[in-house]
Amino acid sequence: MTSRPPLHCLRCARAAEGFAGCRTCAAEGIGVNTMPPLADLAGADLAGYPGGPWGLPTALPVSGPPVTLGEGNTPCIRLRTGPERPQDGASAGELWLKYEGGNPTGSHKDRAMAVGVAAAVTAGAGTVVAASSGNAGAAAAAYAARAGVRCVVFTNEKVPAGLRAQIDALGAERRVHPGSTAARNAAMAEAVEEHHWYPLTSYSSPSPGGNPYANEGYKSVAYELARDFAGRRIDVVVVPTSRADLLAGIGRGFRELAAAGLIAHEPRLVAAEPSAAEPSAAAPFTAALRCPDRADQERTRVAARPTVAFSLGEERPCWQGLDALWRTAGTAVALDDEAIGAERRRLAAQGLILEPSSAVGSAVARDLARTPGTLVVAIGTATGLKGLAG
Amino acid sequence: MTSRPPLHCLRCARAAEGFAGCRTCAAEGIGVNTMPPLADLAGADLAGYPGGPWGLPTALPVSGPPVTLGEGNTPCIRLRTGPERPQDGASAGELWLKYEGGNPTGSHKDRAMAVGVAAAVTAGAGTVVAASSGNAGAAAAAYAARAGVRCVVFTNEKVPAGLRAQIDALGAERRVHPGSTAARNAAMAEAVEEHHWYPLTSYSSPSPGGNPYANEGYKSVAYELARDFAGRRIDVVVVPTSRADLLAGIGRGFRELAAAGLIAHEPRLVAAEPSAAEPSAAAPFTAALRCPDRADQERTRVAARPTVAFSLGEERPCWQGLDALWRTAGTAVALDDEAIGAERRRLAAQGLILEPSSAVGSAVARDLARTPGTLVVAIGTATGLKGLAG
Repeated sequence: MTSRPPLHCLRCARAAEGFAGCRTCAAEGIGVNTMPPLADLAGADLAGYPGGPWGLPTALPVSGPPVTLGEGNTPCIRLRTGPERPQDGASAGELWLKYEGGNPTGSHKDRAMAVGVAAAVTAGAGTVVAASSGNAGAAAAAYAARAGVRCVVFTNEKVPAGLRAQIDALGAERRVHPGSTAARNAAMAEAVEEHHWYPLTSYSSPSPGGNPYANEGYKSVAYELARDFAGRRIDVVVVPTSRADLLAGIGRGFRELAAAGLIAHEPRLVAAEPSAAEPSAAAPFTAALRCPDRADQERTRVAARPTVAFSLGEERPCWQGLDALWRTAGTAVALDDEAIGAERRRLAAQGLILEPSSAVGSAVARDLARTPGTLVVAIGTATGLKGLAG
Repeated sequence: MTSRPPLHCLRCARAAEGFAGCRTCAAEGIGVNTMPPLADLAGADLAGYPGGPWGLPTALPVSGPPVTLGEGNTPCIRLRTGPERPQDGASAGELWLKYEGGNPTGSHKDRAMAVGVAAAVTAGAGTVVAASSGNAGAAAAAYAARAGVRCVVFTNEKVPAGLRAQIDALGAERRVHPGSTAARNAAMAEAVEEHHWYPLTSYSSPSPGGNPYANEGYKSVAYELARDFAGRRIDVVVVPTSRADLLAGIGRGFRELAAAGLIAHEPRLVAAEPSAAEPSAAAPFTAALRCPDRADQERTRVAARPTVAFSLGEERPCWQGLDALWRTAGTAVALDDEAIGAERRRLAAQGLILEPSSAVGSAVARDLARTPGTLVVAIGTATGLKGLAG
């Protein structure tokens, strides 16, 4: 427990304990995560990196034994661009999809939960707890089972049948909280503070955006891309974004690679958000980046609305995501349900079934890849198989 | 088309054309596949092999461009053995699971269909056709979509809802044949012979066990295992077996590796079969290997019975599977529904959800791994996610 590196607020740099993010920034209405220092990758052999969070264990803030189900090392697939036929896209940029649906439970969340559960075990936890309406809950359940610790998942009625069945099959205890996010947060806070359960997701408001140790698992997405595109310049990485845990983790991975001289250039990061009918509803990063100054961007609040991309849809931009976008001169783009549906059909026509919130990324990336000579990677966060028979 | 290497019967060595297997052996009542020569892997850099069928393209009998969705390079995960607690298995052998559910459509079939569809495109086919009650149909649909060719899947009413939805979402034309296997074979033969559709699965009786070019995609499972266990001796590989396409492909891969001096020892191969209540029903390899002489083994016929492992269950042992077992002094083991169900629960308790026919492999492997010092790998052929919400 004592071997974990200290956490500091990403925004105000104050040291912090626990998993509620920075309380000082929260008092200003801003949800900021507290994180360990960046890892020093100097001397790392990227060509020999086997992929996954445990492939570069010194990059992780966890000292105990790995918990693994073979997560990570997912394929990066070149997508056809242009209207319909391959030859039409010949003069445009390159569009690639990093397919995270190939992970053991079917989503990118496996990278985080592998590390988060290992951190929990190292901390001596007997029970882990996650609040999730979807993939994070399934991943938490799987890695807890793998490590032999008890798992409780706080969820709501909107969880699709496939995910519910997955969480149940993995032996997690599912507690349905029909109430507000605030009520669910309160229940989870009680579990953490009274019962000393280890939290794999956030439970404070505004949300800091995930367990800091778990989130470090996402850095491996950047390492794998740098390895696979060895020496080639990746111009843009588009990330489906809700609380920006994946976005921020990928950004940190690229920063570490650049600091160690392992890449010459950090890609521009783009947050892809689903939006409801009103342009900015449920798309806090897109709304925030319309404000000219950062103080207003940090305090943006939008209406949360249901979209087909059920696993996304936040009211505020988690600060860790803004930070990642600012550092790379990135941006955010919101798409409505119709555009997401069209992209899902386009992906299926190339042999790929992704969940709606994953298709947001490749739809946004598809537009950016129209620029000739540009290399754009979309993160396809999760398989669409879970929802097919639901 | 002309660049494809010639096919020869595995049993009688006669040259053959087409996809109906060896007609001479079929006249004796034995279903034998015709295959291209083994590849020469001399000088291959196994440590630098990136995985998947296209990672060693010279090992494939296809000259055209790859068709890929990032298949292969799946993780190999060490499973806990012993009754319940990790420490109980300390003195026994090692049990590993190669998790093929991480493939793009969720099963090992992706390795074959990637190569099979590439062969179809090289042959100038505009339509591919597969007869499948499950994963092969989904994989055929995905790779056909990826290559931009039309796909027809002949199926029956037993296809689970999730798989049906997957095939439909990928844009394949699904034709339900409620009749016998013979009627389905006849319809497919007509499609191949009259309409010149390219067959990705077999349609003759006794079944030879799959398209020869497609089946070569499975060799990559052996290459990946040899790479990942670099230098360590793999004692046994257990393969869930129906028509033995995967079993035979893995066997061929290890033979190539051994011939090139890339491994010192070919693992013993074990066919894992689901059985109905009667010990040998639906378990032709297990039944065959009870006969003392090979001539009787080749002609074994059992009753096909439904089991929970819906994607398995054949009446005859495809000769390619017997050949793989004979060459490695292997064996076959049949398990009933109850044993399969118990193993699925054991896997879920370690964080893994596999389909029933995949759990057969790890259940059989678990027994073999009780021998101290033995390294046993089970092939976990497919994800269980597709059936969860069905």
